[in-house]
Amino acid sequence: MGMNVDKAANTLEHAPSESLSVDAAALGEQLLGRWADIRTRARALCERPEMWKIEGQPVAEHRQRVFDQLHHLVDAGGVLLSFPESVGGKANPGGNIANFEQLVLADPSLQIKSGVQWGLFGAAVMHLGTEDQHKKWLPGIMNLDVPGCFAMTETGHGSDVASIATTATFDESTGDFILHTPHRGAWKDYIGNAAIDGKAAVVFAQLIVGGENHGVHALYVPLRDEKGFLPGVGGDDDGPKGGLNGIDNGRLHFTSVRVPRENLLNRYGHVDEDGVYSSPIESRGRRFFTILGTLVQGRVSLVGASVVASQLASTIALRYSLERRQFPVPGTQDEQVLLDYQTHQRRLLPRLANTYAMSFAQNELLGLFHDVFSGESDTEEARQDLETLAAALKPYATWSALDIAQGAREACGGQGFLAENRLATLHADLDVYATFEGDNTVLLQLVAKRLLGDYAKQFAGADIGAMAGYLAEQVSDLAFNRSGLRRLAQNVADFGSTARSIDYVRSTDSQRQLLTDRVHTMVAAVADHLRPATKLPPHEAAELMNQHQSALVDAAWAHAELVVWEAFTNAIDAMDEGANKQLLRWLRDLHGFTLIEKHRDWYLMNGRLSVHRAEAITDYIQYRLFPRIRPHVGALVAGFGLSAANVRAPIALGQEEQRQSQAREYERGLS
Amino acid sequence: MGMNVDKAANTLEHAPSESLSVDAAALGEQLLGRWADIRTRARALCERPEMWKIEGQPVAEHRQRVFDQLHHLVDAGGVLLSFPESVGGKANPGGNIANFEQLVLADPSLQIKSGVQWGLFGAAVMHLGTEDQHKKWLPGIMNLDVPGCFAMTETGHGSDVASIATTATFDESTGDFILHTPHRGAWKDYIGNAAIDGKAAVVFAQLIVGGENHGVHALYVPLRDEKGFLPGVGGDDDGPKGGLNGIDNGRLHFTSVRVPRENLLNRYGHVDEDGVYSSPIESRGRRFFTILGTLVQGRVSLVGASVVASQLASTIALRYSLERRQFPVPGTQDEQVLLDYQTHQRRLLPRLANTYAMSFAQNELLGLFHDVFSGESDTEEARQDLETLAAALKPYATWSALDIAQGAREACGGQGFLAENRLATLHADLDVYATFEGDNTVLLQLVAKRLLGDYAKQFAGADIGAMAGYLAEQVSDLAFNRSGLRRLAQNVADFGSTARSIDYVRSTDSQRQLLTDRVHTMVAAVADHLRPATKLPPHEAAELMNQHQSALVDAAWAHAELVVWEAFTNAIDAMDEGANKQLLRWLRDLHGFTLIEKHRDWYLMNGRLSVHRAEAITDYIQYRLFPRIRPHVGALVAGFGLSAANVRAPIALGQEEQRQSQAREYERGLS
Repeated sequence: MGMNVDKAANTLEHAPSESLSVDAAALGEQLLGRWADIRTRARALCERPEMWKIEGQPVAEHRQRVFDQLHHLVDAGGVLLSFPESVGGKANPGGNIANFEQLVLADPSLQIKSGVQWGLFGAAVMHLGTEDQHKKWLPGIMNLDVPGCFAMTETGHGSDVASIATTATFDESTGDFILHTPHRGAWKDYIGNAAIDGKAAVVFAQLIVGGENHGVHALYVPLRDEKGFLPGVGGDDDGPKGGLNGIDNGRLHFTSVRVPRENLLNRYGHVDEDGVYSSPIESRGRRFFTILGTLVQGRVSLVGASVVASQLASTIALRYSLERRQFPVPGTQDEQVLLDYQTHQRRLLPRLANTYAMSFAQNELLGLFHDVFSGESDTEEARQDLETLAAALKPYATWSALDIAQGAREACGGQGFLAENRLATLHADLDVYATFEGDNTVLLQLVAKRLLGDYAKQFAGADIGAMAGYLAEQVSDLAFNRSGLRRLAQNVADFGSTARSIDYVRSTDSQRQLLTDRVHTMVAAVADHLRPATKLPPHEAAELMNQHQSALVDAAWAHAELVVWEAFTNAIDAMDEGANKQLLRWLRDLHGFTLIEKHRDWYLMNGRLSVHRAEAITDYIQYRLFPRIRPHVGALVAGFGLSAANVRAPIALGQEEQRQSQAREYERGLS
Repeated sequence: MGMNVDKAANTLEHAPSESLSVDAAALGEQLLGRWADIRTRARALCERPEMWKIEGQPVAEHRQRVFDQLHHLVDAGGVLLSFPESVGGKANPGGNIANFEQLVLADPSLQIKSGVQWGLFGAAVMHLGTEDQHKKWLPGIMNLDVPGCFAMTETGHGSDVASIATTATFDESTGDFILHTPHRGAWKDYIGNAAIDGKAAVVFAQLIVGGENHGVHALYVPLRDEKGFLPGVGGDDDGPKGGLNGIDNGRLHFTSVRVPRENLLNRYGHVDEDGVYSSPIESRGRRFFTILGTLVQGRVSLVGASVVASQLASTIALRYSLERRQFPVPGTQDEQVLLDYQTHQRRLLPRLANTYAMSFAQNELLGLFHDVFSGESDTEEARQDLETLAAALKPYATWSALDIAQGAREACGGQGFLAENRLATLHADLDVYATFEGDNTVLLQLVAKRLLGDYAKQFAGADIGAMAGYLAEQVSDLAFNRSGLRRLAQNVADFGSTARSIDYVRSTDSQRQLLTDRVHTMVAAVADHLRPATKLPPHEAAELMNQHQSALVDAAWAHAELVVWEAFTNAIDAMDEGANKQLLRWLRDLHGFTLIEKHRDWYLMNGRLSVHRAEAITDYIQYRLFPRIRPHVGALVAGFGLSAANVRAPIALGQEEQRQSQAREYERGLS
């Protein structure tokens, strides 16, 4: 149709879209990435009916079912991937997450419950404990003899872990710790396995030795025997939740519970028989963040789970949209396929592009995670990069997955609301991903802090010349457009030609420049506003920071968008020329343009895009990219490689097509 | 703090914010509006524990509970409001919806189930039936002797009602109708009361008399007796859903079921004994839309329910945000209250403003609905206005409610995910509101069609002079800014002064102008693109329309935003000067500025805002409006007037404050 985009733009493409011969199997392999075998095996396990979520199952039965499923996971052996060889594990941290993220296909409750058992409880013992402690506790954790809890969060303190109020006080007279919950706000809360299944817990508490508080440490604490809670331990059930009802979240409290000295997980903090505290990490702050470093694994696995959930939701909604028809096409005997409606393309195609983008981003994150946690490349810098990347991608992926699930649900109308088609309940299950394992808004502030730090490092003592050089290098000629002069020049050059306007933006380099420049400029702007903070008393400095909190979070989000876009682009760069590469380039362009369109106000206000260029973006998305991608949506969905037993939603398995053939047959009989 | 807003801006205000003495009770009365008594009584009914949703209740028990609750509604008498005096009703259509919308406070399933029984099934008999039919069927519907279904949607056709495939064929030999489902796609689907409770249904079918199809008509059809389905009737259960599990949605099909001739609801279409069809409405198209006109009541009540749900969600999240603290405030002994974080204000305050705006918009919609349906002002024009307004507000309110519930849920972290705090399950229950009773995207296209029609009418045969006059009248001097010249002038005039930039936008007239101008310009732009359609063959015209479908939907949405903003402004205009008026003006400014900020790219691209003015908007929201509104959030929430028994979420009832006093007491003991 073309509308506002003149014909010239089309001649730049290599081939007309329909004639591309896309290889869906090759797309699939590319998406499966480095741990393809493990992911494929995990998906096969999820195909077994006993692993499936039963929609509408009452809470108590659902909990029991998921607990039983954990035993199937033990039997399947994937659990071993996470753990050290010294206890019979396979020490494959990346493969471990590649395995567990797929469990979302079976039931998100199963993914999270197994994450509680092995990714949090087990991983805490592994990362915070010493080798003796591994030998003592990991076997029972691995084989599920000891279902356990990761008891960090309290009712009163979630995001602010440093302020938890549970205490572990060393009693010099007996040589053990007294674990104690001083008030209701200090109850451990939202703890998976706490309401029913947990026999033990890693409990985080303020470690007090000789009257001195050494900060938050973790202890291995038995909770229950066959008869129930052990003396001094208590708690209750968090009850039904908005989703994830296969997990028995609950509360725990401790009334002067005696815990043996040896149960302090003592890799980063040790108390000897004489009550002398020691730690290999002198700085209390660094020690705290090292102990909290165990959380990064959970975040990486949530990114993976969000990606798999997005693939599932996209598969269901897009397959239905390719079959479902509604409203007659004038002048024909047929009704129109949903995905041929422009509004439907607007809903689903950018979300499909984002799902691809996130899939590649997760593969990069997983690679970095593996390199650090396998020890292959465990430097301080790599660890910080990993933590920042996970802190950026966890919000990005979890919020995107909610958006994709909701968009998919609405695109399927009434069918989308039926539990059998999985979309509505998928949203409900994923909902809490946005706020647990690090609230998204808080994580984005961590990312912003790192971005500010890097920015400050770059300019410590730098003169104006170096600064200009830095900017020029990073963002080329776009960095000095704030005056608006360049914007005016764009207007003149582009005048009347949308093709010329869009040519500028179409290239990979331009997209990168626009996205990168935005992050840098936003960070620089906030840094500039925050400059006075160093000279202010703490209270006022905090208030100044708070006055720019939204800008900080926005900058961190822009960074996350850039990182995801880069991952998509890296994946394309690594491909051989051909139909698949061309198709993914279009999809990446759709992804990039959607981001630029979303922040078009920023680009306009900061003189990075002329009005003509900004307007051309929407036309280019709708009249160039949608028509190019549309014929290959089936192949792109096939690339996700989800089997019928993984998808299960009847509307994604040909049910609608069958109904329509029946209807057509009936109508032929009438005429 | 001020940041980028110079101090001058402040001097324009009448009073510093903190000193405003707001009257929350008066706010409450204003929000309750014309049917305050009815709404207050309905809320009191919802306070009774037997009316409450039990979170986590298994599907079968939940369904039974909601069915039982319907009987309480009968006993309470509110049901009578809807129905004509001839059958003992009270003929108060506006009051009826004011009553039922409140049931969301008890359980959204109850609101929808009662809507099925009385708002759809009963209302169809009332609107489509004649007085004899009222006397015959309405009493049993009103007192719930006959629970029933509104069987319109089929698996194969939801939005496209005209294409449903169920047939009602007049059999001249017997003088009755044969109701028949020809294939699987023609099964009635998603029908409330169909799976279990329905004893009868209003079934929509193609009416075929003497071989001629007269289009979609409705018949009153018995479904079940004590033993189950009557002969020829069948169906099944839609099973668990993403929410609203207190309703037994199901499917129905009919195998040559004989229905007496008298059971055709024959106000708009009648078949006499000799098999002669007649209708007071000659045009088949108008007849169809008249019959579908029954749906407007459902849409109005969904707007109401969405408003009440938004009030509930805002109440819960804001009360918690006023008590909950996290992270120490440097230099103090205290932790920071959540609502003092800028990101938290960003999340919750614009949603609070939107909740107020929608409350007033619903009051206007309800007034119009009442005037039409009570017959007080039932003109063709008023009916069309009502249908357009409902078609605009239903998408606006339902999507806003989902956004508000989700924002509230996330703002409450883990607490927000617990079912006891109601936010997560509220979102799940409201989810389907966006796609049933008219899919939101489809409704917005109806609105766009009307906007285009009005635009075309205005210009039929008009010369350029008249057109310019029209534009000048509607949008004043803003209409001709596309050249960008005026934008440049703005830049010069405002340069360096954010205060001057914002002064321009701050006034009510400017906000109105910006919002109105945007609707008009968007409609004009689409109309211009669609102009060639009249000369194209139908297939190409449809394709041209489809190429601008997103722009049409965007224009309709802009219209909805304008209408809601106008309602808020009208409510303020009607107030006496004073603290309440000042506060609501700030809140309305926040609402208006948030809209303008959201569409800032459009205003920039179309030369309506200079870069300086566009930038100033965010600063004004964050550094002027938030600090002014912040001290009065408690009063604004109190204005919603929801009692503890209506709210029920423990985190909104002082639980958190209590925990913090305990913690503080403990800490005092330590030091």
